[in-house]
Amino acid sequence: MATLRQDPTTKEWIILAPRRAERPAAYSPFPRDPLPQRDDRCPFCPGNEHQTPPEIARVALDGAWDQRVVPNLFPALEPGGSLEREDAAGLFGEMGGVGSHEVIVESPVHGERMDEMPLERVARVIGLWRDRYLTLKADPATKGVIVFKNFGERAGTSLVHPHSQIVATPVFPPDSLRRYAVATRYFDDTGHCVYDDLLEAELRREERLISKVDGFAAVAPFAARVPFETWIMPLRHQTSFGHLQDDLVSALAELLRGMLGALRRVAGDPDFNVVVLSAPSHEEWKPFFLWHVRILPRLATAAGFELGSGMYINTVSPEASARLLREALAGVGTG
Amino acid sequence: MATLRQDPTTKEWIILAPRRAERPAAYSPFPRDPLPQRDDRCPFCPGNEHQTPPEIARVALDGAWDQRVVPNLFPALEPGGSLEREDAAGLFGEMGGVGSHEVIVESPVHGERMDEMPLERVARVIGLWRDRYLTLKADPATKGVIVFKNFGERAGTSLVHPHSQIVATPVFPPDSLRRYAVATRYFDDTGHCVYDDLLEAELRREERLISKVDGFAAVAPFAARVPFETWIMPLRHQTSFGHLQDDLVSALAELLRGMLGALRRVAGDPDFNVVVLSAPSHEEWKPFFLWHVRILPRLATAAGFELGSGMYINTVSPEASARLLREALAGVGTG
Repeated sequence: MATLRQDPTTKEWIILAPRRAERPAAYSPFPRDPLPQRDDRCPFCPGNEHQTPPEIARVALDGAWDQRVVPNLFPALEPGGSLEREDAAGLFGEMGGVGSHEVIVESPVHGERMDEMPLERVARVIGLWRDRYLTLKADPATKGVIVFKNFGERAGTSLVHPHSQIVATPVFPPDSLRRYAVATRYFDDTGHCVYDDLLEAELRREERLISKVDGFAAVAPFAARVPFETWIMPLRHQTSFGHLQDDLVSALAELLRGMLGALRRVAGDPDFNVVVLSAPSHEEWKPFFLWHVRILPRLATAAGFELGSGMYINTVSPEASARLLREALAGVGTG
Repeated sequence: MATLRQDPTTKEWIILAPRRAERPAAYSPFPRDPLPQRDDRCPFCPGNEHQTPPEIARVALDGAWDQRVVPNLFPALEPGGSLEREDAAGLFGEMGGVGSHEVIVESPVHGERMDEMPLERVARVIGLWRDRYLTLKADPATKGVIVFKNFGERAGTSLVHPHSQIVATPVFPPDSLRRYAVATRYFDDTGHCVYDDLLEAELRREERLISKVDGFAAVAPFAARVPFETWIMPLRHQTSFGHLQDDLVSALAELLRGMLGALRRVAGDPDFNVVVLSAPSHEEWKPFFLWHVRILPRLATAAGFELGSGMYINTVSPEASARLLREALAGVGTG
C-alpha cells in the first residue's frame, strides 16, 4: 500500500507509491543528440554575441568570455514602468510586467553539460547567480528573485547551449509566501528554523542523506514530490542565497556538479530543473528560512490529479533515491 | 510589455506575455497515431475485461457494456486501513495511503476520442463521474474527491483507450483548501460567492465568454495559467459537483464535447487535462464555492521558474483564446 507523507516545510501531503523496480535499469535513457563544440546557428555560441540583447555582465578569461549575462530575448518581465495595480480591490487585478528576466550563458562550449564542466566554471556560474541575485534584489521594485536552470525539453527548454536564468518579480511568488508562512509559524512554535531542524534530523538519521561535505549536505527530502528530487542545503544557517560566501562557492559547485552526474547515471540521464529557493525579499536577515538548491528531475508528468489537487504522486521512495544517488556519487571518477 | 494578472479565486498572480501569433497556424499539430476500433492488447477493450481488477460499476446498453468503472491497476490510494497520523506533531508526518483510485472506461471503442463521441455517451460518462463522486464522498474517510481526465502523453497518460479517473484522498487537497480559504474570505467581505460574481462579470463583459447555453457558460479565465485554459461553470449556484441535476447532464456533455472539439481545431490538437473542481468534503452546502470543470491544454511546459515560484507564464491572452475558441465552436458541424 502507498503511504502519505507531509512536507514539514509546506504542510502539504504527497502520495508515495513506489511502483517501479528501484534500479537504474528501470529507467529508459532520455534521447539526447550528440552535440558539437560549436553551432553556428546558436545565439549563445562565441561569434554570435550580436544575436543576444546587449550584455549585462561577463566573466572574461584569457581574453575571451567564459560566462555572459544577457537579457532574455523574449522576457517574461522587463525593467521600468509603474507598479500600480488596477482594479486591486475588484475581480480583475492587473499590473505592468515590471521586473527582469536574464540569461546566464554558462560556457562558451555549445555541447558542454554542467555535470561535465570544469569545477571552476561551475563555481563561476554560481558566483554569477549570487551576484545577479544581489543586484536584482536591491531594486525596491523586486519582491522575489528566482534563479533556475532548465535542462531538456521536458524541463521546458529547447536551447541546448548550457544556460540558466534569473527572474525578478514585482509580486511575492506564491510558493515563496506559503513556505515563508509555514516557516514563520514553525519558528513561533519552536524558536527554530524548520529547515535547520529538518537538516539536523536528516544528518542524524542518515537514510535520506546523500552527501555531506564542508559547508553543504545533499538530501533526498522526506516528502519528495518527484523521483530523485534532491535538496542541497547549507550546513550553517543562512536565510538568503545572497549571503553565500565566496569561500563556499566552490564546495557548492562541486556538490551540485556531482549530484547532476549521479542523477545522470542513476536515472537514465533525465531532463531536470534546478531552482534556488531563498527567503522573500525584505526578509533576508530573519532566522526563519534556509536558502537551498533543489534538483527536480522530470521523470514524471504532472497529470489531471496533480493539477486538480496540488498533491503529487511519487513512485520512488526518497530512501531508495538517496541510496542510489549516494552509490553513484561515490563512483564518480572511478568508472 | 507583459502584464501581471491576479486570479481573484486564488489571489495569485500570473504573467501574461503574449508572444506567438495568435492564430491556429502558430501551433504545430501534436503527433497522433491513427487508432483502430479495437486493440487486442488494450486492457480496456471489450473481451479483455479480465485484465482489469474486478468491476465496480458498469452502464449496459443493448446487452453489452458502454462504460465500465474499475479500480486502477496501479492505485495511488486504496480503501481500508488506519487514518492515524504518525509523528503528526513532528517533522516526518506519515499515514497510510487510504482512499480510492478508480478508472472510468468511457467507451467500448478503442480509438474514440471524447470530442467525437455520441452525445449520449459523453452524458453517461459525466453521469458516472457524478455518481462515483457521490459514493466516494459519502465515505467518512474521504476529504477530497478529484475527477480528472488525461489525454495524451504530455498530459500524463500513455493509455489511449478513452478513460477518465477519480481519486478520493484522506487529506484535504492543498489547492482545494487554498481556493476555499480565498472564497470564504471573499464571502465574508462581500456576502457573495466569488465564482458567481466572476461569472456574472464575464457574462456582462463578453470578451472572455466563449459560450453560454442552458445551464452553463464556458469562459477563458481572466488570469489563465496556460494557453486556451477554459472553465465550464454552472449558471445557477451549486457548491458541489455532486449536486449536478440529471436534467443538466446533457447540456454539460454537449458543451464539454464542443469545447474539446474547438480546442482541437484551434490549437493543433493538443494533449489536455480535464479536472472537476468542487468544494471540499463537508462544505458542500455552504454558498462560498461554485463547482466547475476546467480544460487545461498542455501546450506549455512548467519549467524552473514555475516550479520555483508557483507563478505561471501564459503566452496567449484569454481574450484571444476566447475569440478563437468561440469561432471554432460556432463552426462545429459546418466543416
